[in-house]
Amino acid sequence: MGMVGGGVDAFIGAIHRIAANMDGLIELSCGALSIHKEHAIESGRVLFLPKERTYLTFEEMIENESKMPADKRIDFITIVTPNFAHYAPAMMALENGFNVVIEKPMTFTLEEAKSLQKKVEETGLILCLTHTYSGYPMVKQARAMMKEGALGKIRKIYVEYYQGWLSKLSEREGNPQAAWRTDPKKSGKAGAMGDIGTHAAHLAEYISGLKITKLCADLNVVVEGRHLDDDGEVLLKFDNGASGVLIASQVAAGEENNLKIRIYGEKGGIEWAQQEPNTLTVKWLDKPTEILRAGTGYQNILSSFATKNCRTPGGHPEGYLEAFGNIYHNFAQTLLAKMEGKTPTPEILDFPGIEDGVRGMAFIDNVVASGNSDKKWTEYIM
Amino acid sequence: MGMVGGGVDAFIGAIHRIAANMDGLIELSCGALSIHKEHAIESGRVLFLPKERTYLTFEEMIENESKMPADKRIDFITIVTPNFAHYAPAMMALENGFNVVIEKPMTFTLEEAKSLQKKVEETGLILCLTHTYSGYPMVKQARAMMKEGALGKIRKIYVEYYQGWLSKLSEREGNPQAAWRTDPKKSGKAGAMGDIGTHAAHLAEYISGLKITKLCADLNVVVEGRHLDDDGEVLLKFDNGASGVLIASQVAAGEENNLKIRIYGEKGGIEWAQQEPNTLTVKWLDKPTEILRAGTGYQNILSSFATKNCRTPGGHPEGYLEAFGNIYHNFAQTLLAKMEGKTPTPEILDFPGIEDGVRGMAFIDNVVASGNSDKKWTEYIM
Amino acid sequence: MGMVGGGVDAFIGAIHRIAANMDGLIELSCGALSIHKEHAIESGRVLFLPKERTYLTFEEMIENESKMPADKRIDFITIVTPNFAHYAPAMMALENGFNVVIEKPMTFTLEEAKSLQKKVEETGLILCLTHTYSGYPMVKQARAMMKEGALGKIRKIYVEYYQGWLSKLSEREGNPQAAWRTDPKKSGKAGAMGDIGTHAAHLAEYISGLKITKLCADLNVVVEGRHLDDDGEVLLKFDNGASGVLIASQVAAGEENNLKIRIYGEKGGIEWAQQEPNTLTVKWLDKPTEILRAGTGYQNILSSFATKNCRTPGGHPEGYLEAFGNIYHNFAQTLLAKMEGKTPTPEILDFPGIEDGVRGMAFIDNVVASGNSDKKWTEYIM
Amino acid sequence: MGMVGGGVDAFIGAIHRIAANMDGLIELSCGALSIHKEHAIESGRVLFLPKERTYLTFEEMIENESKMPADKRIDFITIVTPNFAHYAPAMMALENGFNVVIEKPMTFTLEEAKSLQKKVEETGLILCLTHTYSGYPMVKQARAMMKEGALGKIRKIYVEYYQGWLSKLSEREGNPQAAWRTDPKKSGKAGAMGDIGTHAAHLAEYISGLKITKLCADLNVVVEGRHLDDDGEVLLKFDNGASGVLIASQVAAGEENNLKIRIYGEKGGIEWAQQEPNTLTVKWLDKPTEILRAGTGYQNILSSFATKNCRTPGGHPEGYLEAFGNIYHNFAQTLLAKMEGKTPTPEILDFPGIEDGVRGMAFIDNVVASGNSDKKWTEYIM
Repeated sequence: MGMVGGGVDAFIGAIHRIAANMDGLIELSCGALSIHKEHAIESGRVLFLPKERTYLTFEEMIENESKMPADKRIDFITIVTPNFAHYAPAMMALENGFNVVIEKPMTFTLEEAKSLQKKVEETGLILCLTHTYSGYPMVKQARAMMKEGALGKIRKIYVEYYQGWLSKLSEREGNPQAAWRTDPKKSGKAGAMGDIGTHAAHLAEYISGLKITKLCADLNVVVEGRHLDDDGEVLLKFDNGASGVLIASQVAAGEENNLKIRIYGEKGGIEWAQQEPNTLTVKWLDKPTEILRAGTGYQNILSSFATKNCRTPGGHPEGYLEAFGNIYHNFAQTLLAKMEGKTPTPEILDFPGIEDGVRGMAFIDNVVASGNSDKKWTEYIM
Repeated sequence: MGMVGGGVDAFIGAIHRIAANMDGLIELSCGALSIHKEHAIESGRVLFLPKERTYLTFEEMIENESKMPADKRIDFITIVTPNFAHYAPAMMALENGFNVVIEKPMTFTLEEAKSLQKKVEETGLILCLTHTYSGYPMVKQARAMMKEGALGKIRKIYVEYYQGWLSKLSEREGNPQAAWRTDPKKSGKAGAMGDIGTHAAHLAEYISGLKITKLCADLNVVVEGRHLDDDGEVLLKFDNGASGVLIASQVAAGEENNLKIRIYGEKGGIEWAQQEPNTLTVKWLDKPTEILRAGTGYQNILSSFATKNCRTPGGHPEGYLEAFGNIYHNFAQTLLAKMEGKTPTPEILDFPGIEDGVRGMAFIDNVVASGNSDKKWTEYIM
Repeated sequence: MGMVGGGVDAFIGAIHRIAANMDGLIELSCGALSIHKEHAIESGRVLFLPKERTYLTFEEMIENESKMPADKRIDFITIVTPNFAHYAPAMMALENGFNVVIEKPMTFTLEEAKSLQKKVEETGLILCLTHTYSGYPMVKQARAMMKEGALGKIRKIYVEYYQGWLSKLSEREGNPQAAWRTDPKKSGKAGAMGDIGTHAAHLAEYISGLKITKLCADLNVVVEGRHLDDDGEVLLKFDNGASGVLIASQVAAGEENNLKIRIYGEKGGIEWAQQEPNTLTVKWLDKPTEILRAGTGYQNILSSFATKNCRTPGGHPEGYLEAFGNIYHNFAQTLLAKMEGKTPTPEILDFPGIEDGVRGMAFIDNVVASGNSDKKWTEYIM
Repeated sequence: MGMVGGGVDAFIGAIHRIAANMDGLIELSCGALSIHKEHAIESGRVLFLPKERTYLTFEEMIENESKMPADKRIDFITIVTPNFAHYAPAMMALENGFNVVIEKPMTFTLEEAKSLQKKVEETGLILCLTHTYSGYPMVKQARAMMKEGALGKIRKIYVEYYQGWLSKLSEREGNPQAAWRTDPKKSGKAGAMGDIGTHAAHLAEYISGLKITKLCADLNVVVEGRHLDDDGEVLLKFDNGASGVLIASQVAAGEENNLKIRIYGEKGGIEWAQQEPNTLTVKWLDKPTEILRAGTGYQNILSSFATKNCRTPGGHPEGYLEAFGNIYHNFAQTLLAKMEGKTPTPEILDFPGIEDGVRGMAFIDNVVASGNSDKKWTEYIM
């Protein structure tokens, strides 16, 4: 693995490294860790990178690495830069035969996303998008239950993602994460909707197996002086006729990463919350609520998509890093299978990819369009 | 107290009687308990009513009771019939000098509500509307905190009310409650929005002290064959610029009475859920979350509006009936004070009344209008 | 109903009145509400008692009432005085043909308890002991499940009751409740074990249907200067071979009325906590945990002992007062049945009585004996 | 790192590898992964070990590795075999200059433990004992609060560890973990008390900073046919006069790894539960309960011992593997500091070591002695 961005002190770079390390399948071999020369070099040192593979630009890294012999060369590049700096390294990596792991939202614009999609299709390389929440075992359990129709026809989908960290104008108080997230030149068209709304939309579609077809958005700039939405709520229609609500706010003061989803069908409902991720609550119309738990003794009751994404037995909680690790694990196993000419299992192939990336960028476009419209409903255009 | 409707087996009539009994201030003295003669008589017998005060119609009851000497006559009439049968007994009661307790939504139409309002103003009598949830001590605590600005300026209000009991077409399966609730001739313009949406809207305005000024509604008939909305979601704007979401569904299969409200301001947020009503969670931007509990030892920290609506010390949970009892208690104390020529305390005067009733009927009108509109925003008209 | 003790401002007297009022079956007709003349009179006035039935002593009350005609006379006497003043009015009531409701622990000594038991057996009158927690519907559900062997053979019983209100030497700071509870002359041999340990022991035996046969107690006076145990823990053995632990502390600073019980059998375990009483958690060895809820739609799954002790539908929480009300309700229905020569249903007969009272006093004797012993195990002697 | 035991399919070996991998500081370089030759070789292959460092016995591994040049040689050995096979490799490792990471309970007997202690003191090498639960950030927060006297004098300590996985005679049904855990020849004197009782005792002493001085144990063999205690409860006395209870059961059917601790002092109490480890509840006598959360925005309120053991920001839950990783991380940082001649910070030095190991073995001895005694109290002998 080679990393673009993610110098020491960068939050998400560290997360990617832990997630990649976890299962002993992936090694950080090189990096272009910062656009600031000294920071790049210092970061390489701290991360035990050899000097000759501590690069100053992604171009240098991709060029150099592509010339190395196959058994030394990295297999993939991980891109953890701000949104505006996703496309160029991703495209160059693909063009030079490297697989890609990339942060969401995948690109700066929908056009870039489509362009990457074309390149992925051309090259047959694999692009993995780190929609982390889809890596949790009980999210996968929920998806498996929806797929087999456990709740009957799905009627309602409510997804909400509350954070409080942008409750003040922190971008003016020296918070670098806040600075780029709220800057249209670095983040793109949307703020909260791009950062966490895309996660919520992905989770809703991933679990339900449905697609949003229409939406009605109210996007707000709550903190005065900010340039992008820091809050919004969206009414949703899905392709099977179900309706729902998506809420994403970064000004819900006092909230951490309160992502929660509820889906109701004819026979019952499921509820999952990221802050207690090892539990899936299943409410039934005609019998007592059940609490499904990751890693438990009744493994036969759980889907293989849940059990194969657990590392610990019941009651030893797994968290965000393990969910993240699952995405890397499944991606790495897919690469290994490909190298060995094998077909990965459906459980291993279960990680977000290029189509999710394009759909996420379309979500941003559509939700911003609806936010600007006086009409109630906006058709979801890809 | 004389009761209109609420024969034995009627759910809400029994609830009203328990709530009224609880504090030993109110006695059921007469009733027109059913439009079915035999049921009315049998109900009177079971409830230990004297035969001569077991009436067959509300007209008979009001006529008779108004002729009785002041010390024997009832002080007020409680109306627990279906919505379409609220107005007539309420108006006749007021015209004959009786105070009124009435179920929500207050009337069948907004016009009726305004007509009652006029009569209340003319007569100086008291009308109490049983928006039960505003009777909970920790709801009152939340309201008191908003009033004193504990969270700073309010930015977001999310209120949701999930029930599952109309997940099937129960109105065709002999469920009489389902039958009238889903019948436009008995319930009015709205189904779920009238029954539980009004509760949610009232709670949001009661706690926040704000008023809804614009809304954008998506109302749904989810169960095929039904004639009124059994589900809906509404985007909200409030008079201080805050925005929010109101969700009301009676097809959230597996849910009981999952009413929950979250309000965020500049400094933090509060969260209250009806199914664990003795707890108010206060999340802060810059310090640990606090759990405020009804009836606790730190009484001095709680508002007098909370402490005066508790009957038990901390850790002895109070529930729905006690909240309901608080409304009756405060109403009864207000009547007593009036009789004795005293001014009730602000804590005692704190029960929903005629203005809440008119506003609730306006909510129904506005939410249905928005549901039928292609425009995103509908101005809230009274 | 006539009340001994419970003048206004007395906590438990007010609770009894609300519980008795709740279902419209019982009326407070007379009282000897305080040993202080003026307080007794003032209390009678506030509670709307007629002057001639506002008594100054229980002797006066019982004498007078027993001379009244049967249709005017009270049916039973409720005793809510401190422990040392339970026996005399109870015995006199029974001797004069009145049924009795009495607070726990039933008497001051085990001898008194046995003497009352003899009198109850002689007279055929009914004595009801207000072990409130056995009135909760989900406690009754747990008991019914144990009875039918839902968990297989019971192996472990853990019951704990944490309060914090005696964390300071409040008896010296003008807290009258603390004053008598910690005074051996008023409370008896035991402090915390008498006040809340008896509740815990009763709950364990009530739900499990088992009896304690041996115990090993460590009783502590934690707050210096106190004269009775304010804390203790007890190892238990039951008559089927099960073992367990009972914890009772009144110096668990920050706790309200944290009473919780867990019982494990061969197939699974149940858990119930008084502070969220409408939920019974059932954990299974081989399948997901189930959440049983009072008042829900799947009534057929719940025991009739649970469903007949609910007043509200699912999701409208009932609390401590309703549990208390259930004890009064079932007692009152039993009296009514007896008057009408009918046999009450098993559900109605399900309230704590004289045998529970004797057993509770034996618990106090045994736990204190064990606390004073150097031997590990003390046989439970009745 | 070289590993003794922990071939693929061994639960705890895999956990150790993930924990060690996590932070990119440690590499698995060699192993004697199984006493079964083929399994050892296959495990080495799957774990990408070079053939020449895939050993068949720990003796071979230690001999060989100690001859390698310093820059290639492993720095420490991790021992994850059953209890009876801890001592020999640990002693040989120390004798050959290797630091040691070892599973708990540290040895088979107290004598072995003391012998290891002597060797550690002689050599100045570092032994790290994986009492995982002390690695959780909110456990460290609790310890820091106790240290600074946040609750005043500690009065009560309750610790309980419920598992259900030995509810059946699984050792006879082909469960290898159950087989050795319940076998006195492999596990030692105690079953549940050795496996999970030691964790509970360690947690109680670690957080409180107090030492157990007396105990009174009831140890049970609940499942017929078993040879070691699978359940027990212990009354405790601590060196400051506090008392408490320790419960450890592996027959609590339906439980996963339900480890919970509650400590009460004069001013309030804390509560922490392993199944929701990112939350520390702090209950106060005179003010609302506070919820402290790992990784939150109010970092300045949390102890540096908590914040330095977090990898993710608030609301991104960390779990068991991260707690385990913290132990490895701090141990590795301590080794690094030592190599570089630096003094590690107190936060880094905060991992369980040789003294905890000796104390754990003494706990087993004392608790078994008490279980066999008729006397109530057994003095805790080291």
